[in-house]
Amino acid sequence: MADSSAPTRVMMAVNESSLKGYPHPSISCRSAFDWMLSKLVRSNTDGFHLLFLHVQVPDEDGFDDMDSIYASPTDFQSMKQRDKIRGIHLLEYFVNECHRLGIKCEAWTKHGDPKEVICHEVKRVQPDLLVVGSRGLGPFQRVFVGTVSEFCVKHAECPVITIKRKANEAPQDPIDD
Amino acid sequence: MADSSAPTRVMMAVNESSLKGYPHPSISCRSAFDWMLSKLVRSNTDGFHLLFLHVQVPDEDGFDDMDSIYASPTDFQSMKQRDKIRGIHLLEYFVNECHRLGIKCEAWTKHGDPKEVICHEVKRVQPDLLVVGSRGLGPFQRVFVGTVSEFCVKHAECPVITIKRKANEAPQDPIDD
Repeated sequence: MADSSAPTRVMMAVNESSLKGYPHPSISCRSAFDWMLSKLVRSNTDGFHLLFLHVQVPDEDGFDDMDSIYASPTDFQSMKQRDKIRGIHLLEYFVNECHRLGIKCEAWTKHGDPKEVICHEVKRVQPDLLVVGSRGLGPFQRVFVGTVSEFCVKHAECPVITIKRKANEAPQDPIDD
Repeated sequence: MADSSAPTRVMMAVNESSLKGYPHPSISCRSAFDWMLSKLVRSNTDGFHLLFLHVQVPDEDGFDDMDSIYASPTDFQSMKQRDKIRGIHLLEYFVNECHRLGIKCEAWTKHGDPKEVICHEVKRVQPDLLVVGSRGLGPFQRVFVGTVSEFCVKHAECPVITIKRKANEAPQDPIDD
């Protein structure tokens, strides 16, 4: 049967692995991406248009930059430039996969608090669906970690799908991803 | 492209309208159903298998039965029988729609606390996805109403999609549905 209506626009928030760092996608978002392809898009590659958003969080700890010396405004500039490049490498993973499968997509980065930025981008871009991966932490861990997915389910102005990481994919410390 | 893998099994929790009563589906769940058909299933009707669950809540107020007289065990029996028939009428709406569109489906009723029963049925039936409609109430209203969707997002052992009722479909009192 032909699918003549406009494709379903699915926005997906992707982030880097806290274990492996850039440019590796986190276990949660890679698993959410695979799930979406096999269970929602299926063979209907023309029926979906994927939108990948990566929100870069201003680095509060600066562990990666501990050995860096900031002596001039251009040092900060080059740090920002480096961050940007790493974000682009992360998005490249998803765009390459879509290209391989013949699914149309777009990808972009933003800076700020992920939950706020995601909901703001939903308002601006108006996707049909927002996909967020979740580490599936218990209530105790949730207190300290906070969850982007919970916030988005409540506040995003479109249907939201929460995909928990599978138990067998969870690293030893569930906060790692 | 052929879609040879097993269909995606989508479980949907449906309930009756609190305004119109049985056998009318609530605004939230009818809107979630329509959204799912147009945005996820699309033309790929063979790729999806829909599972409709209606959880009947033991009637605590008994408004409907205020004029009834319970004089024997069979009176209670006939009340239960009547409830069951109303639940079946509700499910009929969804099964008819699926039949019309050529989508395979199953439907059944259970009794109990909706959020507990839904998560229990997810565990038993193991769908690929659970769809729950939400009235999209504000934090103040949420305190009094409690939300099935929030509980399911946290506890159901499968990905969960929360679909809020559209603002223009909301009745004057947002608790009505």
